[in-house]
Amino acid sequence: MRREDTGIMTSPEKSRVFIQEVAPRDGFQNEAGFIPTERKIALIDALGATGVAKIEVTSFTSSKAIPALADAESVMAGIRRHPGVAYAALVPNVRGCERALACGVDEINLVMSVSAGHSLANLRRLPADSLAEFERIVGMAAGEVGIAVSLSTAFGCPFDGPVAEREVVDVVERLVGLGIVSVTLCDTTGMANPAQVRSLCGRVRARWPGLQLTAHFHDTRGMGLANAVAALEAGIDRFDASLSGLGGCPYAPGASGNVCTEDLAHMLEAMGYRSGVDLGALLDASRVLAGMLDHPVSSHLLEAGPWHRRYPLPAFARTGSMAGLRRHAQ
Amino acid sequence: MRREDTGIMTSPEKSRVFIQEVAPRDGFQNEAGFIPTERKIALIDALGATGVAKIEVTSFTSSKAIPALADAESVMAGIRRHPGVAYAALVPNVRGCERALACGVDEINLVMSVSAGHSLANLRRLPADSLAEFERIVGMAAGEVGIAVSLSTAFGCPFDGPVAEREVVDVVERLVGLGIVSVTLCDTTGMANPAQVRSLCGRVRARWPGLQLTAHFHDTRGMGLANAVAALEAGIDRFDASLSGLGGCPYAPGASGNVCTEDLAHMLEAMGYRSGVDLGALLDASRVLAGMLDHPVSSHLLEAGPWHRRYPLPAFARTGSMAGLRRHAQ
Repeated sequence: MRREDTGIMTSPEKSRVFIQEVAPRDGFQNEAGFIPTERKIALIDALGATGVAKIEVTSFTSSKAIPALADAESVMAGIRRHPGVAYAALVPNVRGCERALACGVDEINLVMSVSAGHSLANLRRLPADSLAEFERIVGMAAGEVGIAVSLSTAFGCPFDGPVAEREVVDVVERLVGLGIVSVTLCDTTGMANPAQVRSLCGRVRARWPGLQLTAHFHDTRGMGLANAVAALEAGIDRFDASLSGLGGCPYAPGASGNVCTEDLAHMLEAMGYRSGVDLGALLDASRVLAGMLDHPVSSHLLEAGPWHRRYPLPAFARTGSMAGLRRHAQ
Repeated sequence: MRREDTGIMTSPEKSRVFIQEVAPRDGFQNEAGFIPTERKIALIDALGATGVAKIEVTSFTSSKAIPALADAESVMAGIRRHPGVAYAALVPNVRGCERALACGVDEINLVMSVSAGHSLANLRRLPADSLAEFERIVGMAAGEVGIAVSLSTAFGCPFDGPVAEREVVDVVERLVGLGIVSVTLCDTTGMANPAQVRSLCGRVRARWPGLQLTAHFHDTRGMGLANAVAALEAGIDRFDASLSGLGGCPYAPGASGNVCTEDLAHMLEAMGYRSGVDLGALLDASRVLAGMLDHPVSSHLLEAGPWHRRYPLPAFARTGSMAGLRRHAQ
C-alpha cells in the first residue's frame, strides 16, 4: 500500500504549528498538594527537550492566593533553558511583573476576562480595571520582555452566559491599542463549539493578520480537539495545551482539564502538521507527571498509544484453517 | 447581546443530521455482567423517545459467542416501537438473518472488516468470505427489510496497520454491486484523524452520492468529535454513537468506547445542526444506563452539563466593593 493513499500524511501540506505547554502553571496551581520545587524543575526541563515552542513555567502571584506556585523564583532559577523554547510566566499585576523581570523570563502572560462575571470571580476586578493595569505593566516592561495577553471566557462565561464576538473584538482592539502583539483566545470552561471557534477565530485573524494568535481550549465537553481543528482551519497555528490534560480553573465550576498536550500533538502529527514535538518524549514526560499526582489524568494517548500502534494477531487467527471457527462471528 | 453574534446558532444553517444509537448492541455486548432483559428493554424504550433516528437493538449471533446478547428475541419482542425510529439488529450470517426477520426488525446490519487481520480476529473469516455470505443474505432478505453494512477498520487496522482509501473504495464498490444502499465507515479502534476522515469520506461521498453513508467513530485517542466534524464537512449526515460512550471491540485491543451519544448530540446542537434529539431526555437515559453498570462511563456531558449551564457568582464577587479583594488575582 502506498502510504499517501491512506490520506494520513497528505492533507495540510505539513504546515508548521506551535504547541505551548501550560501544565507547570495552569496544571500545578490546581493541584491540592504542593508539588516539590525540584520535581517541577525536572518536569519543565523534560518538557523543554520535547520540542514545545513555549512553556508557561509559573505564576508570579501572591503565595497566599496560590500557595501551589509560591516557589516561582526558585523554579525560574532552577530550570535549564533550552534554545528555541520561550519560558513564560503568568503575571497578575505590576508587582508580579517586577518579580518576573527580575527572574529573566522570556515572556510575561497577562490575563483578563472578557466577561464581567468571570473577571470578578477569578481576578476580583472588572475588565476595565485589567486594561488599566495592563497599561501600567506595558509601560514598565515593553522592550524588555515579550508580552502576551490571555483572554478568558472569549467563547462564553459560566456566570454571564454567551459572550458576543464583538465583545471579544472590542477587547482585542483595546489590547492592540496598548501595543500588545500576542493574544490568546481562551475557552476557559469548555463552552466553545467548532462552528463558534471557526467564526470568532476567523474574524479576529482577518481583522489583525499580523497579531500572534493562540487558541486555548478545555476538553470539558469533549470538544477540545474538534475546536483545535476548527481554529486551525481559521488560520490559528498556536495552541496552549497541558501535559496529561492537567488543569482547569478553580474559580470556574465545571472547568475540567485543558486540552491534553500529547493528544493534541498526536492529532496534529497524524493530520500531517509539523509541531516539532517528539511525541515519545512527551509521553515519557506525561508518564512522569502522572506518577507525581494522586489522581487519574485525562490523557487518551497515555492509555491507547499512537494511532500506528500495532498488535499481534490472536493465535487462532494465525492458523491456516478457519473451519469451525466462525462461532465468534458478530 | 444578540444571540446570533455569538456565532453559536448560525453557521451550518440548521442542517439536518441523524444520530444512530448503538449502546444496546455495541455497548452491552462488551459488558462483563449480563444486563437483565427487562433493563435492556426499558433503556431501548427510553432511547426511542429521545429522537434518535435508529437504534441497534441487539445482535442475532450465537449465544455461546456473545452470551451478553443471548436474549435477542426477547428484547425485540419486548420493546415498544416509536414511530420514526428504525429498529436495527446486527446479523453475522444467514442463520442470524432468519432470526432477525422472524422478529420483524426494520433493518439488518451486516458487518465485515476491510483488513484481513481484523476480519480474521473479529469474524474468523476473510473479507472475501464476508462478501460471499452477504450475497446469500441479500438474496434472502432484499425487499423484506432494510440492509446496511458496517465496514470495520475503514480508517486503519490494529493488526495490519494503515488501510488505503482504495481498499475501502473497492469494498464499497462490491457492496454497491450487491445492491447495498447503506454503508457505515467504522473507525473501529480510534485510529482515524480528521484530515483522513475528510479525505476518505469525501471520496466515498463524491463517488456514490446516492449511497446512505454513516460515520462510526471511537474516542480512543480523543479525536472522536473532531472526526465527526470532519465527516460532517465531507457531507456525511449520519452518525453512530453510544449512550454514555459505552462499547469498544473485544477483539481489537485498545479500542475504547464509541463516540458518546450525548456529547455528539450536544456538539451538533451547539453548532446549529438539527438532530431532532432531546438532549435532556438523552441525559436522563444516560444517567439510568450509568446506574446499571459497575464501572465509570466516559460521558463528558453527564459530568459537565451543556455549554449553556450557568453558575451563580461567588458571594464575594457579588458585593459592590472590590477593594482589598485582589489577593486572589492570577
